Amino acid sequence: MRQFVVCGHEVPVEPTFSLDDLPGSGGRLDLLCRCVGAGLFTSHGIRDARVHLVVDDQLTVEFDGATARNLNPDERSTAARVRDALESERDAIGHQPAEVSRGVKLYRTGLDATLDRLDGTLVQLHEDGDPATAVEPPTDPVFVLSDHREFTGEEASLLSGRADHRLRLGPRAIHADHTIAVAHNWLDTDGYASY
Amino acid sequence: MRQFVVCGHEVPVEPTFSLDDLPGSGGRLDLLCRCVGAGLFTSHGIRDARVHLVVDDQLTVEFDGATARNLNPDERSTAARVRDALESERDAIGHQPAEVSRGVKLYRTGLDATLDRLDGTLVQLHEDGDPATAVEPPTDPVFVLSDHREFTGEEASLLSGRADHRLRLGPRAIHADHTIAVAHNWLDTDGYASY
Repeated sequence: MRQFVVCGHEVPVEPTFSLDDLPGSGGRLDLLCRCVGAGLFTSHGIRDARVHLVVDDQLTVEFDGATARNLNPDERSTAARVRDALESERDAIGHQPAEVSRGVKLYRTGLDATLDRLDGTLVQLHEDGDPATAVEPPTDPVFVLSDHREFTGEEASLLSGRADHRLRLGPRAIHADHTIAVAHNWLDTDGYASY
Repeated sequence: MRQFVVCGHEVPVEPTFSLDDLPGSGGRLDLLCRCVGAGLFTSHGIRDARVHLVVDDQLTVEFDGATARNLNPDERSTAARVRDALESERDAIGHQPAEVSRGVKLYRTGLDATLDRLDGTLVQLHEDGDPATAVEPPTDPVFVLSDHREFTGEEASLLSGRADHRLRLGPRAIHADHTIAVAHNWLDTDGYASY
């Protein structure tokens, strides 16, 4: 299974934001919602993939393509799901998540504990990584990305320590949602070998 | 310059939709707005690229990355620009566009006349096209994509007649905005040769 972990640095832990202002009071939640769409949707279906939104290194909202129902790819409806999840915080106890709706869970975990929970090959995207054409796509990749801000020093050093691969998908830094689309394409084509 | 033409089949020509309901009354304008973002934005900048949204084969809203100001990548603010453009319809006369704001224009043209106006190599994305790895990326590509619906018969036959290349970017049908991200990556890496 393919998984994408996206670190949100400005999304408020308290869901006080307006759905009319995702870039502002939502702390660039618009971008994180596009990451959910890029991670889960194909043209006529939904992938067997998961997207994990890490909010302020404290809470993680998990979207599971295999079990989620009635997800739509637009930012606003996805943001409403995130808001519902953050409102369920008190129902998440220890490492047990709150079940917000089918396929959507809220964990009381930051990046480190979220990565502990996930099985797969951890892929760090890095400008000094190996070019994608030189790496065989792993079967169960876990990609970790940041929102519009750089990884914090703590996150970056955690990833450097844990990553199984350092990968470069292209020469330009692009938005996290576009990176997810490119990563899926790399995997869909078996590393650009199979169209 | 890279250009992307996206055919919207359900976006209303009269801008009567609500910014709170882009997938519904907006006729999947959410998707078209994500196409604008995917076409124009990099992580820390804006590309010298243009995105042309063809609305119901009657009107075309052009976003020009080189001259646009204060564009944001979220759906809602982009949709507000599209609404402003559609409201300027009466200012577009013949083939002269209405200047809606810097870098945003409204033309009274459908797909055929829009393609007449654009210089470059017309690339048709097609499941029976050549794999991207077998095609040298053109210098000035014009990609034509459809929204959540298939091209109409008329559009498809028009494209078949005009296309310089038929290209396959991968084995799965994906959303138009994700396709644009993948196409940019193909071009950025010079056909996966240069990372």
